[in-house]
Amino acid sequence: MRWDRTRLPALAAALRERLGAAHVSGEPERLEPYGRDESDTGTFPPDLLALPGTAEEVSAVFALCQAHGVPFTPVGARSGKSGGSLPLHGGVSVSLERMNRILALSTEDLTAVVQPGVITGDLMKAVEAVGLFYPPDPNSWEWCTLGGNVAENAGGPRALKYGVTRDYVLGMEWVLPSGERMRVGKNTIKGVAGYDLVGLFVGSEGTLGVATEITLQLLPRPRHVVTALCCFPGVLGAARGLAAVLAGGLLPRTLELLDDLSVEAVARRGVAFPPGTGAAIILEVDGNHEEALYEELSRAGELLAAHGALETVVARDEVQREKLWAARRVLSTALRALRPHKISEDICVPRSRIPAAVERFKALGAELGLTVVTYGHAGDGNLHANILYDSPTERPRVEAAIRRMLEITVQLGGTITGEHGVGYAKRDYLPLEQPAPLRALQVGIKRLLDPSCLLNPGKIFPDP
Amino acid sequence: MRWDRTRLPALAAALRERLGAAHVSGEPERLEPYGRDESDTGTFPPDLLALPGTAEEVSAVFALCQAHGVPFTPVGARSGKSGGSLPLHGGVSVSLERMNRILALSTEDLTAVVQPGVITGDLMKAVEAVGLFYPPDPNSWEWCTLGGNVAENAGGPRALKYGVTRDYVLGMEWVLPSGERMRVGKNTIKGVAGYDLVGLFVGSEGTLGVATEITLQLLPRPRHVVTALCCFPGVLGAARGLAAVLAGGLLPRTLELLDDLSVEAVARRGVAFPPGTGAAIILEVDGNHEEALYEELSRAGELLAAHGALETVVARDEVQREKLWAARRVLSTALRALRPHKISEDICVPRSRIPAAVERFKALGAELGLTVVTYGHAGDGNLHANILYDSPTERPRVEAAIRRMLEITVQLGGTITGEHGVGYAKRDYLPLEQPAPLRALQVGIKRLLDPSCLLNPGKIFPDP
Repeated sequence: MRWDRTRLPALAAALRERLGAAHVSGEPERLEPYGRDESDTGTFPPDLLALPGTAEEVSAVFALCQAHGVPFTPVGARSGKSGGSLPLHGGVSVSLERMNRILALSTEDLTAVVQPGVITGDLMKAVEAVGLFYPPDPNSWEWCTLGGNVAENAGGPRALKYGVTRDYVLGMEWVLPSGERMRVGKNTIKGVAGYDLVGLFVGSEGTLGVATEITLQLLPRPRHVVTALCCFPGVLGAARGLAAVLAGGLLPRTLELLDDLSVEAVARRGVAFPPGTGAAIILEVDGNHEEALYEELSRAGELLAAHGALETVVARDEVQREKLWAARRVLSTALRALRPHKISEDICVPRSRIPAAVERFKALGAELGLTVVTYGHAGDGNLHANILYDSPTERPRVEAAIRRMLEITVQLGGTITGEHGVGYAKRDYLPLEQPAPLRALQVGIKRLLDPSCLLNPGKIFPDP
Repeated sequence: MRWDRTRLPALAAALRERLGAAHVSGEPERLEPYGRDESDTGTFPPDLLALPGTAEEVSAVFALCQAHGVPFTPVGARSGKSGGSLPLHGGVSVSLERMNRILALSTEDLTAVVQPGVITGDLMKAVEAVGLFYPPDPNSWEWCTLGGNVAENAGGPRALKYGVTRDYVLGMEWVLPSGERMRVGKNTIKGVAGYDLVGLFVGSEGTLGVATEITLQLLPRPRHVVTALCCFPGVLGAARGLAAVLAGGLLPRTLELLDDLSVEAVARRGVAFPPGTGAAIILEVDGNHEEALYEELSRAGELLAAHGALETVVARDEVQREKLWAARRVLSTALRALRPHKISEDICVPRSRIPAAVERFKALGAELGLTVVTYGHAGDGNLHANILYDSPTERPRVEAAIRRMLEITVQLGGTITGEHGVGYAKRDYLPLEQPAPLRALQVGIKRLLDPSCLLNPGKIFPDP
């Protein structure tokens, strides 16, 4: 996309006048980190950084960028895995980091009102302190922000039972690409007045505007959580076992799968597995009645044993529980220790196709001479399929493997992104899943709201 | 809206050619029922009835109507309460009733694929027969259809714990106003590729197109359900009691409230309440461990007693359970027996405002000399506030009361429609809740997809 860079000094001056000089920067060392995120897709520093502190200021920044014809990209904690907050074409990074207050927390209404820069984990702790529960738990919960979670419609392991971010967003104050501010959605648990703009905006990856205030639904906090680790000789048995658990009438809050290489990698980090373990499931149930949870797990254990489980270990206290989760938590780092480079694809298939997906990814790896490791939130079909490799020179082969993996995913009735978003990382693959008319309809909505295409250009869809 | 009625014969001929003469009708006695629904807003028979049997035919009907410039309105079971399926301006009623097959039911994937004309209750029974569960339970579940549920984003008592229709729609085959067909959404539990068009289309009340196939997420069926009836001296205590139950960490699947007149009305139908009962709560919990459920209810009973409950009766078997629900089920009919006319407003307020809402509605009734009865899905704040009256001559006073009631609702942070939709019945009240820019944005989306505004004109927003 082309834009007139000579407008930058005038825009910088206007932004400084509106936000104060302290909240606008053009210094390279200050800008540099805003050019990177967790997607490993390259570095795209902005030309300017704007740090609005209020919704009015966000609105003013958007309007000024539009008036000067300069592209602008909202940014949260830069924990994104698809490049959603990278200013691909330069221009202004609009960081919401200063807007980080929890504005209200109601134990009567079971709602929270937050600014977009609130760290997800901070909200979790605040609501748990008053006996409530905010379920969405993206892996980066300790540092990602709720505004980013809204933009990406973030999921997490607990999505199996509790759903994803959009299931908890009741209403928002939203700034449109033009800078116009409006309230969308509702303050109530139910409500169907007009089109569901919250549904449209959550997960729009910073291309249709930005949330400056978010009203979230909370739940009563389950009083007990019980965790089990179940080991299998191989991944196919494990995948069939977890399907049996769900079909058997159990709805755990998480059902995480580790394949053979995942098990090997974490075993090297000192996590003990019984001999012959070629796959593992971490299963977690929650509720208010502890004995009922142990019963659920023992029932799950029977179903898993019937599918060839070697052993099921149930954590009886928080220390044991922490030990079981350690296997999952060290996984990403442990895999990096196997090979210096790692690409993780966040795909999702219908649950019945998990065995086929795992098998076909392995075969693909063998065919291309690449190491493929699959693990993830298998309970809802959301697998993280990883390609491990040794040197950047292998990158073309890796790229070919990624495309093939995503093609297989779509053939299996799946989606190319379960929870990370399309952004920049997967925009070239979107046509594998969505035909031209469907993409055209979405581009039509984008252009309706942002005719100049200055907000976060080049994301989800091709460059304008 | 104006349209050229002389185009009707040519359109009728074209429709007959495409669908077969048996599936197109212009006979008044056949058309008449399609002019009415459960909204009590008047009779608006179509000029033609088209009964497509496939998605291709739906698409063709839409395209033919567009080509002839004749308005067209999709219709399901006509169980709607907001007039969403009424052809206000005549034209063609496009009934999906022939498309009534359950196409797939997967116990492995926990999904169902249905045509829009499937009756909600039929799906419920089919999935329960294989140990699964489809939670959304609009009151009309025995005859409403899933296509209508999608159009209206239908709720029901179980929404408190399980959410509403949109929470279960993974993907759809959708026919746009132009007649263009496309698949939106996904087949998987998770997925964030592109904008959430499922979110936008579910609840669009037949103004942005129609679903011709729906992929629904199912849950494992909870093995036990336990129901309790809790009686209070008055509605304020009851409302505070139910807030305490939720804040106390319990999440029942339903929490229904009956106020004094509701109790009186059902008592007259032979349902027994302890003396001094001025309000009641029906509370239902579900799960896999029966003893845990009784414990939950006994904990709830303690919290309710602390808020002045007179008595809590727990159903110990299906017969007792049926008896408790009878109170709720006879309510609508019982109220009609009190006065010949009844208007029911489907509002939703933040839960903490339920006592204020009930109190202010009562005061409003007293001020205007009208009988106001409030009951409903109070657990999520979704109240059905009813105005009972004797004669149509009172209608102006009733209309004034409705407007005041909706104004009060919005003042309390609520919405004018919790689950019935805006449609025709509430389109004039939408500005109470949504300011002009928000409505303009929605009209913009409508015009992007339906520039001619021929699909279901006059719904949600003013006549084009």
